[in-house]
Amino acid sequence: MGLRRAGVAAHIVGCGRAQLLLRALELGVIDSGTPDPCEAVAASDFVVLCTPVETSIALLRQIAPNLKDGALVSDVGSTKQAFAAASREIFGASAAWRVLPGHPLAGRELSGLENASAELFAGCLWVLTPLGDVEPAENAVENAAEYAAQTLTAAQQQWVAALQSIQAHVIFSTPQEHDRTLAYTSHLPQMLSTALALTLKQAFAASDPGLQIHAGGLRTMLRLAASDPAMWEQIAASNRHNIAAALESLETELRNLRLSLGGAGFRVQFEQAREFAKSLKG
Amino acid sequence: MGLRRAGVAAHIVGCGRAQLLLRALELGVIDSGTPDPCEAVAASDFVVLCTPVETSIALLRQIAPNLKDGALVSDVGSTKQAFAAASREIFGASAAWRVLPGHPLAGRELSGLENASAELFAGCLWVLTPLGDVEPAENAVENAAEYAAQTLTAAQQQWVAALQSIQAHVIFSTPQEHDRTLAYTSHLPQMLSTALALTLKQAFAASDPGLQIHAGGLRTMLRLAASDPAMWEQIAASNRHNIAAALESLETELRNLRLSLGGAGFRVQFEQAREFAKSLKG
Repeated sequence: MGLRRAGVAAHIVGCGRAQLLLRALELGVIDSGTPDPCEAVAASDFVVLCTPVETSIALLRQIAPNLKDGALVSDVGSTKQAFAAASREIFGASAAWRVLPGHPLAGRELSGLENASAELFAGCLWVLTPLGDVEPAENAVENAAEYAAQTLTAAQQQWVAALQSIQAHVIFSTPQEHDRTLAYTSHLPQMLSTALALTLKQAFAASDPGLQIHAGGLRTMLRLAASDPAMWEQIAASNRHNIAAALESLETELRNLRLSLGGAGFRVQFEQAREFAKSLKG
Repeated sequence: MGLRRAGVAAHIVGCGRAQLLLRALELGVIDSGTPDPCEAVAASDFVVLCTPVETSIALLRQIAPNLKDGALVSDVGSTKQAFAAASREIFGASAAWRVLPGHPLAGRELSGLENASAELFAGCLWVLTPLGDVEPAENAVENAAEYAAQTLTAAQQQWVAALQSIQAHVIFSTPQEHDRTLAYTSHLPQMLSTALALTLKQAFAASDPGLQIHAGGLRTMLRLAASDPAMWEQIAASNRHNIAAALESLETELRNLRLSLGGAGFRVQFEQAREFAKSLKG
């Protein structure tokens, strides 16, 4: 919807269940549609896989023989190492120009066509993890334009421009760095919120009137716990080692806080945490 | 400010640093003021201690000999068992009618006189933990009016009415139940946010451009970490055992999640957490 409004897509082919395609046609979101992935990609210059990680890998394998010469494949999966590895396995060295994996850091609690919005990606971060030999340097976050001009193919640069046309803020990273960072900045907060909900469930019945006795902070900390289990199952499976390391580190910090409750080190830990939280805000 | 606007306070005596009192007088927030707690309470029918728990206990001890006959003392401390025990130690059996401990579940990131608001407590929960023989039953949360009418003194009922005049939602609990519940619903979320900040600090420098790579959830989960360390030091000290139990339970849930990443039990845990989080919202 965003790409259409920006006028960068000549013809949009949808792929999905027949009923959904009919509704999308009615709403003018797509120009044509088919439930068959191989048919859907046959004439396309750009192919975007918008499914959970494991499904996108299976689809990539399925459509690979049917892609047009020069077609570029991207995706929107929450982790990038597994998809990058699959791309290299399927396309060999040509994965570097045939695939440009991506991850938009946006989303809403509501999903489905009826809740779709052309505005969803405006102002959001869209991470791309190129598969070529020239890895984005640590400063590629800040020098994205320079990196893109020097290392991406013309089609890949067109995809970057398309994302920018819907006001996404495009940055580059490696699949490894992306997955490690997201384990801490996205997957860890999710696990925390889920573990908090499970702890409260152990301690109280959901109907316990005592649960009324809480300040605003509790609902805030439980917001992520309402996320989709099916999506998180795939994220957890495809980024298991990074998430496990982040969780172990968090468990250590929690144990340290617990052992210093009311003791000497407690204040120092709180002050360090406060300083970090404030610096991130600024 | 709220009580004044509601017209329930005939004369408000402030107690604090001289400079602050002058400013409060200028703003019309108090009618008179003194830095001496014993002088401040000498002619007052209602005394409200608005300091952290340990300071309130020290003040209670200090002002006790100077209280007017029939004066009622309340407080706004974040934990209630330590203040209840001190009240009983200082006043013996008469603590039941001379003190009515309280805890308003409200607050803002900004503190100080310049950020004060007469609206702060509108719609917020204000827990009272009476010290009499008739403990609030489990259903006292829902039958607060009935409980107050049957067990509180006239002065205590006046204090309840004063709180209701500033639109606070008054409920009753025991000091024990209050502190156990808050350990889970307030102190645990705080420890979690602080531990998350410490974990990220370990993994990244605050200036790391990679830290840009996060969705909205991270800032949400780090909001509480910016809370005042001095206040939390006193909360942790005065509710150590309950918070330690809640933290141990959370550490177990986190370890269970970690050990099931990408495995069979993971989905079930996520679904249970989601169900609990959604039921709390409703």
